[in-house]
Amino acid sequence: MKILLASKSPRRRELLSQLGYELAFVDIDFDESTVKSTQMPIETTAQTLAHCKAAAYDTSTLDDNTVLVTADTVVALDDKALGKPANRDEAIAMLQSLSSRAHTVYTGVCVRGRTAEKLFTEATQVHFRQLSDGEICYYVDTYRPYDKAGAYGIQEWIGMIGIERIEGDYYNVMGLPVCSLNQALASWSL
Amino acid sequence: MKILLASKSPRRRELLSQLGYELAFVDIDFDESTVKSTQMPIETTAQTLAHCKAAAYDTSTLDDNTVLVTADTVVALDDKALGKPANRDEAIAMLQSLSSRAHTVYTGVCVRGRTAEKLFTEATQVHFRQLSDGEICYYVDTYRPYDKAGAYGIQEWIGMIGIERIEGDYYNVMGLPVCSLNQALASWSL
Repeated sequence: MKILLASKSPRRRELLSQLGYELAFVDIDFDESTVKSTQMPIETTAQTLAHCKAAAYDTSTLDDNTVLVTADTVVALDDKALGKPANRDEAIAMLQSLSSRAHTVYTGVCVRGRTAEKLFTEATQVHFRQLSDGEICYYVDTYRPYDKAGAYGIQEWIGMIGIERIEGDYYNVMGLPVCSLNQALASWSL
Repeated sequence: MKILLASKSPRRRELLSQLGYELAFVDIDFDESTVKSTQMPIETTAQTLAHCKAAAYDTSTLDDNTVLVTADTVVALDDKALGKPANRDEAIAMLQSLSSRAHTVYTGVCVRGRTAEKLFTEATQVHFRQLSDGEICYYVDTYRPYDKAGAYGIQEWIGMIGIERIEGDYYNVMGLPVCSLNQALASWSL
């Protein structure tokens, strides 16, 4: 079985490459804002985006033994989605809003063959301890988390020193729920 | 503040090095079996071992700005501690016993100055899905987890595809509760 991964995230590429499947990459041009503007519960947004991204690809061209994998991660604080910070001030404000409390990371995954697909969402609770402004500024200026929803990477310094506990799959917070994706691929029949 | 880490574990060395403290390493010769044979609840074993390891070092020789850090990790299945597997059969049997259920990883940490110390334990619940014998044998033969209590590394393939969820600190399962250790160091006064 071959996997065609539609993601530019180096973290997703690295995680998926460790599962041992033959792997190729594809860019899908899809304007996420067309979906994000519609009304839907925050816990289904990631799944819907993963589905739409896959649906924008012509899967009729896939080989018999190839599936397309798309994913989208949403960092949800209460009912508000935190996107990628546009600048330093936004990154700092996001991390301040995550300090001393829990939020939820949803990753929606779509595994799509020629005609059928599996679609699921994995949720992980992440608990930050109180972060000082000094820690937040040091992290933002050193790691520049502008490509990360919620303005942090759990595998980076701020995740190591700031996250007290998680409930769920660690890799889901990195952007790909590896355990459930592997299960979905293992039970996939084309 | 300088840290003297008494651990041969490359994982602990790597995790601690990311906290930004000046770091040195020391070997402490301590026979763990003298402690493990005594009666104590499994959740305090790791802490006691960390303490004893530190107590076996002559901390009166430490600089004013240096602390010794020792740690011990215990993988507990019900009330039984899983040590490092002695051979292939033991590694396979351990992973079979962890399959389809949760266990707890306790890491006890001791931060010790010249005369005083802080001692704490961090617990993380780890939930394995059902592992097939094929997966277990592939992992054991490929990754040779003979230096790992419980016969697995959460950061390796078996952790990525086999662990459905955790509750607690991910890095604690790797062998060092980085978030709480960093807090203990930040609030340390010599």
